[in-house]
Amino acid sequence: MRRVEVLKSITSANDAIAAQNRQIFDERGILAINLMSSPGAGKTSLILRSIEHLRDALKLAVIEGDVASKIDADKIDKQGIPVVQINTGGGCSLEAHMVATALKKLPLENIEVLFIENVGNLICPAGFALGEHKKVVISSIPEGDDKPMKYPVMFTESDILVINKIDLLPHFEFNLVNFRKVVKGLNPRVRIFEVSCKTGTGLDAWRDWIVSEAKRIGKP
Amino acid sequence: MRRVEVLKSITSANDAIAAQNRQIFDERGILAINLMSSPGAGKTSLILRSIEHLRDALKLAVIEGDVASKIDADKIDKQGIPVVQINTGGGCSLEAHMVATALKKLPLENIEVLFIENVGNLICPAGFALGEHKKVVISSIPEGDDKPMKYPVMFTESDILVINKIDLLPHFEFNLVNFRKVVKGLNPRVRIFEVSCKTGTGLDAWRDWIVSEAKRIGKP
Repeated sequence: MRRVEVLKSITSANDAIAAQNRQIFDERGILAINLMSSPGAGKTSLILRSIEHLRDALKLAVIEGDVASKIDADKIDKQGIPVVQINTGGGCSLEAHMVATALKKLPLENIEVLFIENVGNLICPAGFALGEHKKVVISSIPEGDDKPMKYPVMFTESDILVINKIDLLPHFEFNLVNFRKVVKGLNPRVRIFEVSCKTGTGLDAWRDWIVSEAKRIGKP
Repeated sequence: MRRVEVLKSITSANDAIAAQNRQIFDERGILAINLMSSPGAGKTSLILRSIEHLRDALKLAVIEGDVASKIDADKIDKQGIPVVQINTGGGCSLEAHMVATALKKLPLENIEVLFIENVGNLICPAGFALGEHKKVVISSIPEGDDKPMKYPVMFTESDILVINKIDLLPHFEFNLVNFRKVVKGLNPRVRIFEVSCKTGTGLDAWRDWIVSEAKRIGKP
């Protein structure tokens, strides 16, 4: 924990920019969701599924964060949704100033929900506020059920846990009951969704949550 | 790439300690292998399988790196293999000084192969030399085949790529031919093993490689 606290004091400049981002989101009534996970847990898949389920109800946009490449942004762009790709170079997290720059390239007057896909890892993104309303961590069944104990800060900091690839549960030794218990022990306020972006299981509840949050944040 | 270069100059102190670690390994004839991957790709599983295949032929030891917990060290300890757990707090990579401290707690006169399990992510560990002879990156089928493009430095820096969970290939859209081609494009000298730590597929070749490297490094 010590290292993360040091990081937090180093990043007070980051926090100031995050507060500015948050003000933009609040003034415009844009629900901003920061999606974090290990590589390959399903951040982009969840965004693509959310687009499918929400595009008729809400105006969406996406910021894609990666060390390199624009593979994910290209996938979003194909859906006709406004998207900006951020490449961090070697950076292991998005930072607030990167999001601030990306916001200048998005049609803010025409967005109700902004998905921010962070760089794929369970450590650094937990230390950088971006101005988001909600932090979402995605776990996936093939990663194994011991990750909350190994990366506790990520699970403590997140508002929402999405357990993805739930269709693979029969094929892996993953103790779902214990996993939920450990996460709730670290973070009693966390809300948990179990989904499969492949089969579609559980995505209705996820969509309903976004709709209700967007209504809460959105302009009256 | 820019950010990683900056990181490298910051870590010249790290490099100096890494060189000291390397001298210890070379003088004692210890083959040191740095294992890196996303969370859940199979670093600990590969170490446990290596112990099973190598314990009668070579004297083994393990350094376990995690942000928090000693889950992995406990698994190794159960096998009766010398192990030291390093917890980095919030740090997203092992660093050379952590390994130097761990070495003081290991029976160096009685080790021929040292596995160093790094913190689980594809970004930070690529920037910190530990003094190892070989860097091994593990990819796993459920992570998806686009990771080399998103985290190129990790794949460029590694000597060995182990593709784990190869038994799951029929259940995922993972283009193995293209994956290998992209990795070889980034790093023509990389050697690739395809394995399943679950079924045991491919582990003979992995074992043979370690035996031959240990012979090369070991005392005459």
